[in-house]
Amino acid sequence: MSAYAPDERSKAKRYAKNVTYDKDEIQSILAAQPLLHVAFNAAPSDPSTPQFPTILPMLGALGTHASDPEPHIYLHGSSVARLSRLTSNTGPTGLPVCVSSTILDGYVLALSPYNHSCNYRSAVIFGHATFVTDADEALWAMELLTNQVTPSRWANSRTPPTRAEMTATAILKVRIETASAKRRARGPESDRKDAKDAETVARVWTGVVPVYQVLGEPVEAPDNAVKEVPGYVQQWTESESRKAREIALEGATG
Amino acid sequence: MSAYAPDERSKAKRYAKNVTYDKDEIQSILAAQPLLHVAFNAAPSDPSTPQFPTILPMLGALGTHASDPEPHIYLHGSSVARLSRLTSNTGPTGLPVCVSSTILDGYVLALSPYNHSCNYRSAVIFGHATFVTDADEALWAMELLTNQVTPSRWANSRTPPTRAEMTATAILKVRIETASAKRRARGPESDRKDAKDAETVARVWTGVVPVYQVLGEPVEAPDNAVKEVPGYVQQWTESESRKAREIALEGATG
Repeated sequence: MSAYAPDERSKAKRYAKNVTYDKDEIQSILAAQPLLHVAFNAAPSDPSTPQFPTILPMLGALGTHASDPEPHIYLHGSSVARLSRLTSNTGPTGLPVCVSSTILDGYVLALSPYNHSCNYRSAVIFGHATFVTDADEALWAMELLTNQVTPSRWANSRTPPTRAEMTATAILKVRIETASAKRRARGPESDRKDAKDAETVARVWTGVVPVYQVLGEPVEAPDNAVKEVPGYVQQWTESESRKAREIALEGATG
Repeated sequence: MSAYAPDERSKAKRYAKNVTYDKDEIQSILAAQPLLHVAFNAAPSDPSTPQFPTILPMLGALGTHASDPEPHIYLHGSSVARLSRLTSNTGPTGLPVCVSSTILDGYVLALSPYNHSCNYRSAVIFGHATFVTDADEALWAMELLTNQVTPSRWANSRTPPTRAEMTATAILKVRIETASAKRRARGPESDRKDAKDAETVARVWTGVVPVYQVLGEPVEAPDNAVKEVPGYVQQWTESESRKAREIALEGATG
C-alpha cells in the first residue's frame, strides 16, 4: 500500500477517521466512473474583483502512458476548449486544478435529521494540468478515454481519428500531486438519547436507501444498421449496473 | 421567462447553442437532486505558491426564505466545517464560490469516437456564500435540506433539533449572482462521411445508453422498530427513480 503525500491542499482537519490518502483507494474511485468535476481559476479581467473558481463537469480517465512512471488523469470534453485559453498562458508548469470524483451510494436515515447522512465514495485530487502535445500520447489518451466510458468501443467504432479530428481534440493531463479520499458505507448511527426514547423509536423508520446508477437498455439510433446490440455493449451496461448496485447494497447493510 | 444576467464568470464562449441563462431551467436542475459540487479558494499559507481551488461535494437545496425576494442555495454537510474557517475571514460579503449540479442522462455512441457524447443536465452557479446566522432561518433551512433529500422526512423524524444540534450545524447560503445551464438530450450525430461509408455503418452500433440513478428498496437498520417502510419513503424512492429513468429515455429517443 502506498499513499499520496498529504499537504496543505489535501490534508483533512475534521472527520479525519473517514479520510485516506491511499493510492489504490483514490485510483479505484477515479476508475469507477468517468464523470469528473474540474475546478480552476480564470483570472478576472479586472484584478480588483474577487477571484471566483469555475467548475466544469468533464469526462476523464486514469491512465499511465509509457513515458510516465505514475498514472495521470486525462480529461476531455467540449469544456476543454474553455480551459485551453487559460492554460496557454500558464507556461510549461500548467494550470492549477482540483479534480473531484463523487459516487453517491445511499441515503442514510437516522432517528433525527441531525444524524442523517450519505453513503458515498469521494476522491479529490490536486495538480497542474497541461495539454497533451505529443501525437502518440494524444492518440493513446483518446483510446483510453473512449474505452474508459465504454470498454472495447475504440476497436468497435470508426478509428483511427482523422487528422482533422486529432487537431480539433484537446486533451488535458493532470499530474496527481496530492489527493485524498473519503468513503462512508454503513447504516445510520442515531443519538443514544433518541434510541432510548420509546415514542421516537416506535414512530421513526431508520435505515438506508441504496442509491446506484443504472445503464439502461441501449436505444438504437434511427439510422443504426447493426441489428443486435453488440455483446461488449450489453456486458458493459449489465456489469456497471450490477457493480454499482452491489456496492450500494453492501453499504446499506455494512 | 426570466434569466440570470450572464457576466464574465458564466458567459459561454463556445457551444453557445446548448447554453441557457433561464432561471427556471437552472433552478429545475438544482432541484432535481441534492448532490452539489462546491469550489472555493483557500488562501495558501505561502502567498508565493500557486492558488489551487478546492472542490467539496455537499448536499444542497434551493429555497426562498421569507426575508428574501429570490431563491438562494443552502448548503450543508460536514465539509461546511472546513469552509467555516475560510468564510469567517471574508467579512459580510462572504466567500466567492462556484456551485455545480450535474446529472448524467445517457452515453451517446456515434460511428466515430470523436462524435461520441453524453446526454446531461448541468448548472453552474457563481455567488458569495455566507453563514446563516439567524436562528429562524437556520431552522427553516434545516427543514428545507432534510425534505429536499427525503420529502416529508422532517415531520416524520425526531424534530425539532436540540439546542446542541442547532449550534453544531453550520449552514451556508449562496446568493445566485450569475449562472448558466447546459443540456443535451438527443441521439448520436455522426459525421456525414462516416454515415456514407457502408463498411462502417454495417459494423458500428450507434445509439444511446440511458443512464439514471435508482433509489433502491429501502434497507432497514438492525434496530429499526417501524415494521413497514413508510409510504412517504416508498413514494419518494419510486418517484425519483421513475423520473430519472423517464428523462434518460426521453433523451435517448429525442
